[in-house]
Amino acid sequence: MSDSLDVVGIGNAIVDVLSRTEDAFVAQHDLVKGSMTLIDLPRAEAIYGALGQSVEVSGGSAANTVAGVADLGGRCGFIGRVRNDQLGGIFRHDVRANGTIFDTPPAEAGPPTGRCMVMVTPDSQRTMATYLGAAVDFGPADLDLALIQSAKVLYLEGYLWDAEPAKRAFLEAAEGAHAAGRKVALTLSDSFCVERHRAGFLDLVERHVDLLFANEAEIAALYQVSDFDAALQQVRGHCEVAALTRSEKGSVVLSGEEVHIVDAITVGPLVDTTGAGDLYAAGFLFGYTEGYSLYDCGRLGSLCAAEVIAHLGPRPQRSLKELARAHM
Amino acid sequence: MSDSLDVVGIGNAIVDVLSRTEDAFVAQHDLVKGSMTLIDLPRAEAIYGALGQSVEVSGGSAANTVAGVADLGGRCGFIGRVRNDQLGGIFRHDVRANGTIFDTPPAEAGPPTGRCMVMVTPDSQRTMATYLGAAVDFGPADLDLALIQSAKVLYLEGYLWDAEPAKRAFLEAAEGAHAAGRKVALTLSDSFCVERHRAGFLDLVERHVDLLFANEAEIAALYQVSDFDAALQQVRGHCEVAALTRSEKGSVVLSGEEVHIVDAITVGPLVDTTGAGDLYAAGFLFGYTEGYSLYDCGRLGSLCAAEVIAHLGPRPQRSLKELARAHM
Repeated sequence: MSDSLDVVGIGNAIVDVLSRTEDAFVAQHDLVKGSMTLIDLPRAEAIYGALGQSVEVSGGSAANTVAGVADLGGRCGFIGRVRNDQLGGIFRHDVRANGTIFDTPPAEAGPPTGRCMVMVTPDSQRTMATYLGAAVDFGPADLDLALIQSAKVLYLEGYLWDAEPAKRAFLEAAEGAHAAGRKVALTLSDSFCVERHRAGFLDLVERHVDLLFANEAEIAALYQVSDFDAALQQVRGHCEVAALTRSEKGSVVLSGEEVHIVDAITVGPLVDTTGAGDLYAAGFLFGYTEGYSLYDCGRLGSLCAAEVIAHLGPRPQRSLKELARAHM
Repeated sequence: MSDSLDVVGIGNAIVDVLSRTEDAFVAQHDLVKGSMTLIDLPRAEAIYGALGQSVEVSGGSAANTVAGVADLGGRCGFIGRVRNDQLGGIFRHDVRANGTIFDTPPAEAGPPTGRCMVMVTPDSQRTMATYLGAAVDFGPADLDLALIQSAKVLYLEGYLWDAEPAKRAFLEAAEGAHAAGRKVALTLSDSFCVERHRAGFLDLVERHVDLLFANEAEIAALYQVSDFDAALQQVRGHCEVAALTRSEKGSVVLSGEEVHIVDAITVGPLVDTTGAGDLYAAGFLFGYTEGYSLYDCGRLGSLCAAEVIAHLGPRPQRSLKELARAHM
């Protein structure tokens, strides 16, 4: 089978609604700072009504990663569920903007396209409240196995590991990718997400995942340990490659006996951390599919993360390809 | 009649779709760099389809100005026409976010909420292609005379001076404001707009406008002169106050015998000029309604413009009130 694509992502198809808020706003609305909370439509409307001037940017963790890989020059596909409404049209346009294939048919009835309210506090940290909308009904019927099997890497976001049909779709997609000799990558997405579904995630990581992306809190939650080094020792045996991100401390990349310590990169002032992990994964995966050394995969990940945290919103605003040409 | 509000704006209710492009993209799509071109739906879809990853931010010239005045602490109202769709909901949310009154009923049929494709070229200049959508049918029936008469200043955007019903609405609004002893402010919006409707604008400026906002190209187009100083001499007799903006050269504020030269202010790197004129007007009008000297009105205008050009999109992303506290 030919490698017609580099990365196919599967994730929640949602539009981000970003707004600057005070810490008090996050607390008032019972949200956990720095984390992602799933909310229903009435709560979404209440939070949106209270939010100030906002900016809309297509989001979704895996979709952000795919957009980053495509911006670097990779050939990508995306699978996710929007509705046939204006926000769905915006999401579709933006995923396709760099040539990414996105042909999951939009839902013609049911909830509207999902959106995620992203509250950026004065410390530039982001707190998210997600109304999944049409994405909540994602399931095996939405998969395009031929698309998945045509890509070197299948990339899955942990956020989708929640409803049963989405879990079945995940496993089916991973098995399909492996059957075609492809690699399966997963991001753990959120430590609360990991805690809610720890057993499932452990099984997923141990049996189905080749490349694992996680931050410190997520990997510690997965192995129920309190320090990063303990988590690092655990993950070594379980995945072919693990890329563990540590915010301003950079990242650690593990593979068998190999261990690389990758420093963070700065390309501008810290404005908004939204999308940092997603764009780290984008840089890493692009490097991986291009045959870079694992250290250089990590460096490109750091660089892409550096771009996205220097402005509001989770998608690159400068050409990552040009940035890579200047910095790598 | 009590001054319950500071500024009421009337303008096109549209959402901006911002994207970075090369100069060649602007030329390919027959757009005039730095200017605003009205387009129909098929052309809007063709341009949007060709545009890369975009960011959506509520826009509309007068709406941006009103959002700026409200962010500074002013009490505002807005009148403009959206449809009852998702983009209309976003526009309404953002105008109301700082307490601005916006009660124009959304259209329940007809074209969707308008949008403006904003192409930001590598020199940070913006070129606009606007599909007016629901805003194209704006007319006298959309006016709320009580709201207009409750504000110290009525602010009109020249972009709306195009279709006959909108022109009638403009004149009706201006006469209503003057009947209540209020001031009428106008921005000329765009030099091509001025050239298309020069006689109408001249009549508007001479007979109905107290405060005029224009940039160099617009004021030169209005008086058909080639240099700024010639335009400046012409406008002096025609308006109570004229604030003429000159990009990085700052602005000149005229009122009778008074002339003030106001320098530009820098608060960050130049990222995107979208909204610079709108936010200059916001700072100026807030100062004006608060009784600032004309020089300080101009300085606050410069400061607000400086904030909006330091990021993508035409609405403030930092608190203008705090910025003013730090700089004025």
